[in-house]
Parts: sequence; C-alpha cells; structure tokens
Amino acid sequence: MPDMLVNNTHYRTIWFDPELDTVQIIDQTRLPYRFEISSLHTVQQAALAISTMRVRGAPLIGATAAYGLALAMRENPDDAMLSDACEMLIATRPTAINLRWAVMALRSELQSRSPEYRAEYAWQFAAQLCDNDAQACESIGEHGAALLADLAAKNENAVINVMTHCNAGWLATVDWGTALAPVYKAHDAGLNVHVWVSETRPRNQGFYLTAWELAAHGVPHTLIADNAAGHLMQTGQVDCCIVGTDRTLPTGDVCNKIGTYLKALSAKANAVPFYVAAPSSSIDWHGAQTAADIPIEQRGPDELTHVTGVSSAGELLNVRLGGCEVASTSTEFSNYAFDVTPADLVTALITERGTVPASQAGLRSLFPDRFSSQSAYCDG
Amino acid sequence: MPDMLVNNTHYRTIWFDPELDTVQIIDQTRLPYRFEISSLHTVQQAALAISTMRVRGAPLIGATAAYGLALAMRENPDDAMLSDACEMLIATRPTAINLRWAVMALRSELQSRSPEYRAEYAWQFAAQLCDNDAQACESIGEHGAALLADLAAKNENAVINVMTHCNAGWLATVDWGTALAPVYKAHDAGLNVHVWVSETRPRNQGFYLTAWELAAHGVPHTLIADNAAGHLMQTGQVDCCIVGTDRTLPTGDVCNKIGTYLKALSAKANAVPFYVAAPSSSIDWHGAQTAADIPIEQRGPDELTHVTGVSSAGELLNVRLGGCEVASTSTEFSNYAFDVTPADLVTALITERGTVPASQAGLRSLFPDRFSSQSAYCDG
Repeated sequence: MPDMLVNNTHYRTIWFDPELDTVQIIDQTRLPYRFEISSLHTVQQAALAISTMRVRGAPLIGATAAYGLALAMRENPDDAMLSDACEMLIATRPTAINLRWAVMALRSELQSRSPEYRAEYAWQFAAQLCDNDAQACESIGEHGAALLADLAAKNENAVINVMTHCNAGWLATVDWGTALAPVYKAHDAGLNVHVWVSETRPRNQGFYLTAWELAAHGVPHTLIADNAAGHLMQTGQVDCCIVGTDRTLPTGDVCNKIGTYLKALSAKANAVPFYVAAPSSSIDWHGAQTAADIPIEQRGPDELTHVTGVSSAGELLNVRLGGCEVASTSTEFSNYAFDVTPADLVTALITERGTVPASQAGLRSLFPDRFSSQSAYCDG
Repeated sequence: MPDMLVNNTHYRTIWFDPELDTVQIIDQTRLPYRFEISSLHTVQQAALAISTMRVRGAPLIGATAAYGLALAMRENPDDAMLSDACEMLIATRPTAINLRWAVMALRSELQSRSPEYRAEYAWQFAAQLCDNDAQACESIGEHGAALLADLAAKNENAVINVMTHCNAGWLATVDWGTALAPVYKAHDAGLNVHVWVSETRPRNQGFYLTAWELAAHGVPHTLIADNAAGHLMQTGQVDCCIVGTDRTLPTGDVCNKIGTYLKALSAKANAVPFYVAAPSSSIDWHGAQTAADIPIEQRGPDELTHVTGVSSAGELLNVRLGGCEVASTSTEFSNYAFDVTPADLVTALITERGTVPASQAGLRSLFPDRFSSQSAYCDG
C-alpha cells in the first residue's frame, strides 16, 4: 500500500493533479473536523499554506516549497521571480531545515538552466522530491518496525506501547510519516502496537492529526495530556518513544516540536528507549553546529488563547480561553514552537539508511558522503 | 494584608458567613470567566464541591472537608451521621492527603465527645484549621521569599523568573497559597518577580487560576504551554521553580499535579533550583511509604475532550475538541491527575517551619514530633 487511506481512498498530503493542472494539498488546519482538499495555484498560495500551517511537518513543507517554486517558474521563469520566490518561501518558517534545503537545492539547479527549461525541471524536481520522501519514510518504517519487533520479542509478544509527540505521521510528510512509519509497518505486519498520543499543546497536533491518522488506519491509541508522559514512563507503561525531527544536527542533537525535550528527559530517567525518526533531509549537514545556532520559531499567543471545537449545537466555533474579570490584560504569552533535545538523550536515530547512534560517528557511518560535501537534497 | 484581594475586597477561598449562617466558597469551576460565591448548606454539598472541583487544591479541600463535617454535625450529630459523613468526604478525591487527615483528625475528636457538643466543636475546628492553614502558608511565603531574595542578590537584582505549575496559589489554600506565597511576599517586598505560568492541561488551572490570581495581585507573569517548560530552563530563562504538593512522603518524594515530574527532571538537568512548598498538612507522616502506595486519581476523558471558552459573540460555551470524520470513536483517553517527583529531583521543601532538604533527615530536623507519633493535623 503506497499511500495512506482516508475514506477508502489513497492519499498523499500533496500532489500534482493533471486534470486541474495544479498542486493539491490536504488542508491540515481543518482536521480533524473536516477533510478538505485545497488547490495551490501560485507561489504566494504555497507560501501562505506553509506559514498558516495548512501544510506542516518538516518533510511536507520542504515538498510544498519545491512545488511552490514550480508554480513560480510556470508563472514567470526569470531570475527576479526565482529570487523573489525563494526568498518568500524561505521566510515562511525558520526552524525546519527541509524547507530551506529544498529551496536552495532547487534554486541552484534552476539558476544553472535557462529560463525556458526551468518550469519543467522544477515540476520534475518537486515530484521526485515527493517520491524520494515517501521512499525514505517507508524505509524508516521498515528499520523502525524491526526495533518494535525486537521489543515485542523481548516482551513475549505483549502489546508494545509506543509514545510519540506532536504529529510525525504521514500528514507531516508526503506519505508514511517518520515517527509513525514504524508503527504502521509493525501494525500491518501483525504486531500488537498501541500508541500514546500526547495532545501536543498549543496546536493539539497530536490530538487533531496523530489520533486522526491512527484512527483512520485502525491502530489502537490513547490520547493523553502532554503532562502525563512522565508518569506513564515512570510506571512502566511505555516501551519506547519515537518522535520526528525538524532539524537534526550532525552531532545528533534533535530540534523538534516543543515538549520533545521533556519526553526525552523522562525517557532517559526511566530507561525507556528514545528514538528519533530522522530522514537525511532533516539533517543540517553544513549549517547549525550547536543548538544555539538553530532559530527557534516563536508563534502568536492565539495558539494558547483560542481553540476550535464543536458546540453542543454541532457548530464549529473558535472560542477564547481564559481572560478574566480582574486585570486579564496583564497576562503575557510566550509560544516557542520547538526545543532541542541533546544527543545524549537520544537512544538512536532511525534514518532511511538504517538505525544509528545519535552522534557524528553514527551519522558518518551511514552518510559518509554528506559529511564531505554540500551534496544534493534528499537522495533517499 | 491578611486576605487576598479581588475587586478591592479581601477574600479567603472558604469562610463561615454568620449572617447567612452557612459556609461560603469561591466557585473555582467558574473562574476565570466569572467570580462567583456559592453557599454550602449540607455535607453532601461540601462533598460535591470537592468532587466537582468547585474547590480544589490540597489545603483547601482539607478545609472544605472540615466544614463539611461541621455541616453534617449541625444537621445530625449522631454516630451514624458522623461515620457516613466521613466516608462520603474521604471518597471524594483519593490523592491529596490533607482531605483524609482533616477528616480523620476531626472524626477522632468528635467521637470522643457526646453528640450535643459535636457541632460546636466541629465549627471551631474548621475555623481553626483555616486560620492555621493561612498562617502556615504565610510562613511558607516568608521562608520562600528569603530564597527569592537570595536569588535576586546573586543576579544583581535583575528580574527573578519563577516557574510554577498548576495552581498552588491562594485559591488552592485558604489564603496566601503555597507555591505562590513566596512570590506574593517577594513582590510585596519590592522584588522584581516574574512568573512563568504553564497552562497545566488538561484542566488549565495554571491558565485559569494562577494567571488570574497573579493578574489580580499585579504580579508580572507569562503564560506558556506545558511543553515549553524544558526549553525555557534550557535557555536560562528560569531562576527557580516553586510548585505545590498534594501529598509529600516522609522521604521527600512529592506527589503533585500531573506534569510536575517533567518540570523537575528539566530543572535537575539544567541546574535550576526546584522547590516544593509543602505545608506539614500535606505530609503523609504515617501512611504511604513509597510512590507506589499513593493512589493516583484518574479522571474522566471530558477534561481532555471539552473546554469552556468565549465565542466571538461573547457567549460562554463548552465545546468538544477533536473527533473526526474517520473512525473517531476508536480514540481512547487516559487522564492521570497526579505524578510523583522523586526526592532527588527536589532541591528543598519550603515548610511553615523553614526550608529543608527533601529527605527524612531534612523533615525530621524540623518536625521531630511528627515522626514519633500519630500527631494532630495541621498545627501550623
């Protein structure tokens, strides 16, 4: 099964539709209340889809940026447009490295071509990037499923309890997912996998996206408050954690959705293996060298103060939380979107080429080519 | 200022009103949207106020239980009523030790008295318990403020950033609070204190109660997602943590609102002092010996799936979160309300008698009397 199933139809999160002659996405800001497909006709729309998080997840925003450049080149393949489009796309979100690299890699290819060939090349590049991403995620699924099978064997085939964070499922990628790919592969192979899904405040992407994905695929799962992760690990209810990554340093440090670090600390303290599903496209081979070099996105207070839900009358509403009769306006808000988990808290990185220690030596053993040069983006 | 200020009036969280001839509480399920006072006329109403969390916080539910017994004895002071009332109150919530001890201590006094004296004694006991609690909290405030003053001196009187969890302010106690008492004392003494308030899912008691309290008192504060606590500590933005406790073991292990453990792990990893404001009434001197002995309350899924907020039309509404077009019913929910922080993660306990290491030796140095016998509840 190459693509994920929704209402008995197989979907990727982004694709070119030849009939509509444009790019289609699943609008993730509507989930889990509505499953809606949207069209992207321009690079501006692609940029807006990224910045408003209609598409999100490091691999998927990389793919969307590539399609955004293709849309730009279709409109006007000249150098000024190329430069403006790249700038616009890179400015959408600062932390995930896939976005920047997809743009930079494609830009460099396009600059070496004369304008009349640029659009076609960009379309091909974007499509290939999507295929590579899906393939990398599927490989991560196979390598990760082997780890889950080992845990199952040790536990006499009892239920394997996997804790994840945020959404690093197929919705975060083009297909399969990163952290959830091993879960899907293991479940499909007949392992008894159960997933602890933390709601992942403030955007509730665990609740809204991961629980939705797992439900659609029929994988048993339980929603918890983010605060409950420590207690579950402390009381032996978690066999391993698998999370995604928005930017992995060559040292093995992992920048991922805010709260990942707390789960990693708890996993370490309770001897729970903590795996990071890291496609090579998420590794910042030649950029940030330490956590301090990574720009941590800060988002608006509305993610903390407002939430969308369904009223008792069945109406979908956005409501304001908090506020009070006394001096409500004096409350300030802070909303960092990512944190950095030091490599020493990471048991291993699950990459498309295999599972390795979260260290320079570990990564070098699988990706010797990447350490030596500024090589191309995402070759699977 | 003995009592906390709301709309220019001083309030405790619970009191006997001689004119109405009954017990009054602030209905905390209505905050921060409404500030409402409710009457308790019967022990059943007191028990319901505790179980529905109209009153909450370990010290306050102890006080409410004492008033509940007084209401029961006023209705009927016979042995059967006493026994039934105690059973009903103890069954309301399992984790906080104050509740059980207030009931057991008062029960034992009442049993030794003939029925005609019971009501009067119970009223006096409840009033005294409230005064003792307020006094203990104020002492904790003074001891804790000294720690904050030390931090301020070390930091050349820059802003002192205190992180707390859930609500252990005056709303959780009769007056002053436990974790927030040092903040109020320090703020009132002119220190530049700023509080990181984590929303504390799933009930948002940090957001709804702590931010409300701090705003009402004029203490600068910033709301964050629970997930952000690690990043803030890792990046040097937190000078110390102060949290409350629902049950403290004589070993120094601390059972408190779910998520406390994650903050403690992060504090330890980043050398941030982690203080627990622990009135002696929260210490389980002769009960649970290890974390495994503490009954951890599990609450319903509605705390995860539903939230109350204000619509754009200004209407206060309860909305359902999540749910989806695909297989929504397969999502399970788990909602542990407390976790246990091992003593080795706790820098010190701030008690009404002073600040001590979180250990048997530490507690014994201040409370030698409590280790030797089943002594009375909450003598301040």
